[in-house]
Amino acid sequence: MTTALKSYTFDGNFRMHRAGHLKSPTLVYETWGELNTAKDNAILIFSGLSPSAHAASSKDDKSPGWWENMIGSGLPIDTDKYFIISVNSLGSCFGSTGPASINPETGERYRLTFPVLTLEDVAEASYMIVQHLGIKCLHTVIGCSMGGMSGLVYCVRHPNAVNRFISISSAARALPFSIAVRSLQREMIRSDTKWQKGNYDLGDPPITGQRLARKLGMITYRSTEEWTQRFGRERLTDHARIEDQFFAEFSIESYLEAHANTFSDVFDPNCYLYLSYASDLFDLAEYGGSLAEGFKQLQLKKALVIGVRTDILFPIEQQRELKEGISSVCSDTRLVELDCIRGHDSFLVDMDAFCPVIDKFFESCD
Amino acid sequence: MTTALKSYTFDGNFRMHRAGHLKSPTLVYETWGELNTAKDNAILIFSGLSPSAHAASSKDDKSPGWWENMIGSGLPIDTDKYFIISVNSLGSCFGSTGPASINPETGERYRLTFPVLTLEDVAEASYMIVQHLGIKCLHTVIGCSMGGMSGLVYCVRHPNAVNRFISISSAARALPFSIAVRSLQREMIRSDTKWQKGNYDLGDPPITGQRLARKLGMITYRSTEEWTQRFGRERLTDHARIEDQFFAEFSIESYLEAHANTFSDVFDPNCYLYLSYASDLFDLAEYGGSLAEGFKQLQLKKALVIGVRTDILFPIEQQRELKEGISSVCSDTRLVELDCIRGHDSFLVDMDAFCPVIDKFFESCD
Repeated sequence: MTTALKSYTFDGNFRMHRAGHLKSPTLVYETWGELNTAKDNAILIFSGLSPSAHAASSKDDKSPGWWENMIGSGLPIDTDKYFIISVNSLGSCFGSTGPASINPETGERYRLTFPVLTLEDVAEASYMIVQHLGIKCLHTVIGCSMGGMSGLVYCVRHPNAVNRFISISSAARALPFSIAVRSLQREMIRSDTKWQKGNYDLGDPPITGQRLARKLGMITYRSTEEWTQRFGRERLTDHARIEDQFFAEFSIESYLEAHANTFSDVFDPNCYLYLSYASDLFDLAEYGGSLAEGFKQLQLKKALVIGVRTDILFPIEQQRELKEGISSVCSDTRLVELDCIRGHDSFLVDMDAFCPVIDKFFESCD
Repeated sequence: MTTALKSYTFDGNFRMHRAGHLKSPTLVYETWGELNTAKDNAILIFSGLSPSAHAASSKDDKSPGWWENMIGSGLPIDTDKYFIISVNSLGSCFGSTGPASINPETGERYRLTFPVLTLEDVAEASYMIVQHLGIKCLHTVIGCSMGGMSGLVYCVRHPNAVNRFISISSAARALPFSIAVRSLQREMIRSDTKWQKGNYDLGDPPITGQRLARKLGMITYRSTEEWTQRFGRERLTDHARIEDQFFAEFSIESYLEAHANTFSDVFDPNCYLYLSYASDLFDLAEYGGSLAEGFKQLQLKKALVIGVRTDILFPIEQQRELKEGISSVCSDTRLVELDCIRGHDSFLVDMDAFCPVIDKFFESCD
C-alpha cells in the first residue's frame, strides 16, 4: 500500500498539559502543496475525533481522504496555492502516539497508563510539527468539530503563530448535553465486560460497547430532518424469531448497524475514551477565568465560524458564541449559519454547502 | 401499604392486534371523582411508557402520583367534576398483565413468549375497562407521550365512544430519530449478557443495560438548554484512579447516574422492550393507507394538541402535523406550542406551563 504519511518523533519528554509526560512521542501527518519561500502559505487542519491524517488523496496515496472534495488543485483549500498540513491527533490510533502505542519506557502498550489527554496536548503536538517544518506563522488554522476546539486553543496559546482561523461546527467549550452523550458513549465501552479496565485482548476487544457508542454517535451526528426524508418508516423484512423482533424492522436500524460495524473494526477503544474525554474537558474559560477573557488572548487578522442549524451536538448557539467572542478581538470575523439537514456531520457530507463558504474565505485573503 | 388500585380480569382470550392472544389478562387501574348518572363525565388518561396507574394521590393512596398537580379537587383535571380513569398499560409491570406476568396457560412467566405488543393492544385493553365501568362515551381521552399515540388510536378505533381528545407531546407515528433512539436503548438491554434472551435471573437482571438505556432516555427527554442553565460545566471532585477519569467529573454525569439507578430498580427489562417496540410500530397511516386517511376516522367535538419546542423525541413539527390532521375533521382543534426548556419531559415537571392550558380546555367545555 502506498502512503503519503510522514512521521516525526520528538526527541525527549513531551510534557502533558494536566500531568505526566510522554517519552519521545511520534506524530504522523500528511502534507499537500508546496511551502513557499516566505513560508507564509501554510494551512494546518485539525480533524474531528475519529479521522486519520489522510484528509485528501495525493500522488503518493490515491485513496480518498475524509475531506476529499475540499482539498486539492483548484478546490477551496487549494493545493496549488497553499501548503496544507493534517496531523493525526495525539492520542489517536492511526500512527501518532496514543493509548494503543508501546510506551518506550516499559516496552508495553500504554493503555490506561497513558496520561490524561487534553485538547491542549493535541494542539501542542501539532505545534511541534509546524515548528519541525520551520513555519513561524500559519496562514490559517482550520478545525472541524473536536478539531475546532483544538484549533481554537492552538490560536489562543500561540497568538503570534497564526494569522487566520476557521472554526467548523465546533464550540468554545463542551456543554452538558454533549458531555452527557459522550459520557454515555464511554460508559457503553467501559460497561462491556471485554473492556477489562482497558486491558482487553487486542484480538477480542469490547466490540459490543464500541458498536453501541458508535450508534449513539451517529444519532447525535445527524438530524431528525435528514432521517425522516431519507428513511421515513421504510421497513425491512419481518423477522421470524421473537428475540429479533425488538430490532431492525426499520431501515434506520440497519443503517446504524452498518456504520457501527465499520467504525468498530478500526478504532481502538482506549484511544476513543481518551479523545472523547479530552473533548469534555475543553473550556476556553480556563484562559483568564471566563470565555470573554479567553477570547481576548487571540490575535487574528481574519476568522470564519461555520455552523449548521440542525446540529444538536454543537448547536447553533455555540456558533454564535464563537462569532461574538472572536469578534471582540478580530473585527474581520464572519459567521455563516447553514441550513444543511445532515446535522453535525454536514461538513463531511454536504460539500455543496461548505465548499463555497471556504472558497470565499480564501478568495478574500488574496 | 394502602392502595387505590382496582383490578379487572378479562374472562376469556384477549386477541392481540398483530397475532396471538392473552388468556384472561388482568388490568389494574385507579379512578378519581364520581361517575355521574348520565355517565358522560369520564376522562381516560393514557400515560407514557414508564408510569404506573397511580397518576395522583387519593384518600386510599396518599402517595403523590406522576401527575399529582394536574389531577385533583379544583385542579385542571378536576375530580369534583369528572370521573377520571388511569389504567396501567397492558404490557407494563405495575399490576397489568405483561411479559413479567405468569402465563395462566403454562404457569410460567411469559418473558419473550408474550405476543408482539402494539399500542392498539394498549388502547383496546383500556377500552375493556371503560366498558367494564359501563361508560358508553368518554368525555375526554388524554394521552401523554406514548400515551398520546395510544389515545389517538383509541379515538380512531372507537369514534363513537369519545367526544374530546388531548394529545400531549406525542405523534401520529414514530419517525426514524425516535426509532433509532429506542432501538439503541433496546440493544443496550439485549447486549447485556445478563439479559439471556429474556430469561434473566429476576434477582440479577441486566441492570447495566437498563441503566445505559435509561441514561439515553434522560438525554432525549430533556433539552440542551435546560442542562446548560442547570448544570453548566459544574464539576464534582477530581478522581484518583485513572479508570474513573472517563466518568463523573461533571455534575450532569452524576445526575444521569442517580436517575438511571432509580429506574432500573423498578422496571422489568422485558416489559420495557415490549413497550418501547410498540411505540416504534405505531403508525396512524395504517388506518386507510395514509396519515390523512387515518385522521379521517376521527369523530371529535373538540381537540387540543400540546407540544414543547425543545422536545427532540416528539418534535414540534409532529405536533403541527397532529393539529393539521385532527383539524381536517374537527374544526375546534387547538395547537399550543410551549416554550418550556425541559424538553419532552416538560409535561411532568413544568406544571406552571401545562396546567393553565389544560384548565382552559376544560373550562371551555362547560
